[in-house]
Amino acid sequence: MKFRILNDTFVEAVNNVNRALSTKTPMPILKSIKLDVTNEGIELTASDSNITIKQFIPALQNNVHIIEIDEVGSAAVPGKLLLEVLRKANDKFVEITMFDEKIVHINFKNVNFALNCLDVREYPNINLVTTNTPLEIDSEKLQEIIHQTVIAVSTTESRPILTGVNFKIQNNILTCVATDSYRLSQKTVAFDYDLPDINIVVPGKSLLELEKILATTKGMVQIHITNNLISFTMDNITFQSRLLDGSYPETSRLIPKEFGLTQTYNRSELIDIIDRVSLLSREGATNIIKFDIYEDKTIISLDSPEIGKVVEEVQPIKQEGSLIRIGFNSKYLLDALKILNDEEVTIKFTGEVRPFVIQTQDDSVIQLILPVRIE
Amino acid sequence: MKFRILNDTFVEAVNNVNRALSTKTPMPILKSIKLDVTNEGIELTASDSNITIKQFIPALQNNVHIIEIDEVGSAAVPGKLLLEVLRKANDKFVEITMFDEKIVHINFKNVNFALNCLDVREYPNINLVTTNTPLEIDSEKLQEIIHQTVIAVSTTESRPILTGVNFKIQNNILTCVATDSYRLSQKTVAFDYDLPDINIVVPGKSLLELEKILATTKGMVQIHITNNLISFTMDNITFQSRLLDGSYPETSRLIPKEFGLTQTYNRSELIDIIDRVSLLSREGATNIIKFDIYEDKTIISLDSPEIGKVVEEVQPIKQEGSLIRIGFNSKYLLDALKILNDEEVTIKFTGEVRPFVIQTQDDSVIQLILPVRIE
Repeated sequence: MKFRILNDTFVEAVNNVNRALSTKTPMPILKSIKLDVTNEGIELTASDSNITIKQFIPALQNNVHIIEIDEVGSAAVPGKLLLEVLRKANDKFVEITMFDEKIVHINFKNVNFALNCLDVREYPNINLVTTNTPLEIDSEKLQEIIHQTVIAVSTTESRPILTGVNFKIQNNILTCVATDSYRLSQKTVAFDYDLPDINIVVPGKSLLELEKILATTKGMVQIHITNNLISFTMDNITFQSRLLDGSYPETSRLIPKEFGLTQTYNRSELIDIIDRVSLLSREGATNIIKFDIYEDKTIISLDSPEIGKVVEEVQPIKQEGSLIRIGFNSKYLLDALKILNDEEVTIKFTGEVRPFVIQTQDDSVIQLILPVRIE
Repeated sequence: MKFRILNDTFVEAVNNVNRALSTKTPMPILKSIKLDVTNEGIELTASDSNITIKQFIPALQNNVHIIEIDEVGSAAVPGKLLLEVLRKANDKFVEITMFDEKIVHINFKNVNFALNCLDVREYPNINLVTTNTPLEIDSEKLQEIIHQTVIAVSTTESRPILTGVNFKIQNNILTCVATDSYRLSQKTVAFDYDLPDINIVVPGKSLLELEKILATTKGMVQIHITNNLISFTMDNITFQSRLLDGSYPETSRLIPKEFGLTQTYNRSELIDIIDRVSLLSREGATNIIKFDIYEDKTIISLDSPEIGKVVEEVQPIKQEGSLIRIGFNSKYLLDALKILNDEEVTIKFTGEVRPFVIQTQDDSVIQLILPVRIE
């Protein structure tokens, strides 16, 4: 295996697939990136056995030779170190050469790195799934779906199914839901063509890595789904993840439809307030914030007996319905406010111990928070 | 105690004195900042009992009222929280009021913070030292002295005296030395007026905090030294530190005067090389870099049997003397190169197992590294 490649292109691809590498893995070979060099280009593969990322770099791009291939072949190269070396390379091109199937040489200018490699034949065979009926979704839209739901996945393993986001298609409507049972995020997207019904759960961790890759890509993403795998293909990159086993709880009936009180606030003003009030929650035992809603104003307060107390007053933009006094985790509201987009945000209450809903004019996204009982 | 103050000014002062606060202290009161309000202004004090920082904010600055004082008095306010609250204040002025000697109120716009305080009478009495013969040194120069020496202080407590920088004045020449016994940094500054002889050791940790404060100040710094304390006064800030007990080892004879080989390199090119070569040392067991010096080139290499090997070639700008092969800790050289200023740097060798010297045209600063025996 021997090739010479435009370093900027190589760094970008190695950085992309590196997101699948795990620092802690029982299989040392999975700390490597697998390089498969053919006359058409280079395929890079990295995997932690839950997530697999593959990227293909074609030798010829827009009639420009990005890669000069001297000898085809494969190698398993230490992934983290490869990226670090390429990032510090002070030349436009780097030359990669495999010796004796166990040492890879990286050459540029007056520099030679010789990195020890594991035997590429030890690298597990990872097939990418394909189906005849891929979903197609715009890269930006998919990023938004992930961004607006993944905050609510559970971070504890007490109910493993809740560590994922539920993707459900019914009647050509995709509904994505995440909940840690204290709060819930839901995003719906309608498709204008026929889709098969699905109901799967994608690990939150996988989606967070996918989100980073989506941020660097444009155009349509093809999604293939099987019983236990999901793959996303964009540009020359394929991101594949295992699905979570088990059935996701039915959540639609949790979301109230009628409300006794709605309050509309300026979203960024409310973010600043919750952020400031939360100062007293960081070191203290409590992060329970209280909203005392009057007709012309809302009193937001946090009482942390050991540290102190903070009280802020804010004027709602609109107010409808009866008054209420309600307490809840300040972090949940802050997370919800941050992933919404509009200038104004409406909080809809049904009662002091009933879940309340946070929404903007964009009604495709619903955030729900369960309050706690306060004195 | 009650006053109203321009928040930008207050944040800056609280941030300065906060550098003395320790998060781990057996005395809870030392997590507080002490505020002493008189009709002339506010004095802020913070201390971890090794370092003390005081700053005075005059009520009147350039004929502008920075502070409106309603009631004089003192308070011990939680330092970290005070800074966080002030940083998130969304108003030009904040009002500070003490209630019942145990709760401080911070008010701005529609916000009220009430923070629990400890009794200010528990705050230890910390006097600032003064002498009749202060040293005077330019703030920028003092920053440079610290920056160019403190890298070499020992970070282990096996010989506590080596965790400080030795400040020594003889014949109106100030010599500052730090060494962890593997490398040494020395900076000399000549004064054109009479100074008393001194020989003290200032803790490296104190100097690192002082360096940050100096970065925000200008003009002359007054230095007072007693048996066990040193204080630095600049603008309205005084920084005081305990001195280390014990006598500093005599180091002047460690620095060789004659050299068999001198090599001059481009400093930033050499930094890039050492930085790149060190990639193989991070995860590996060894950080020993080798220089093989030939007449027309230097081969720099690092061999980490488990990970791999890197070899770089660099052309010296000037070369004098016989050839050598020498090995040493790559981090020491990188640290030394980074704190020097000139475009070119000269490395002066006396032998393969003898300390070597790194210098630039500015001969007030000398860096010395002890090599290791290599095969």
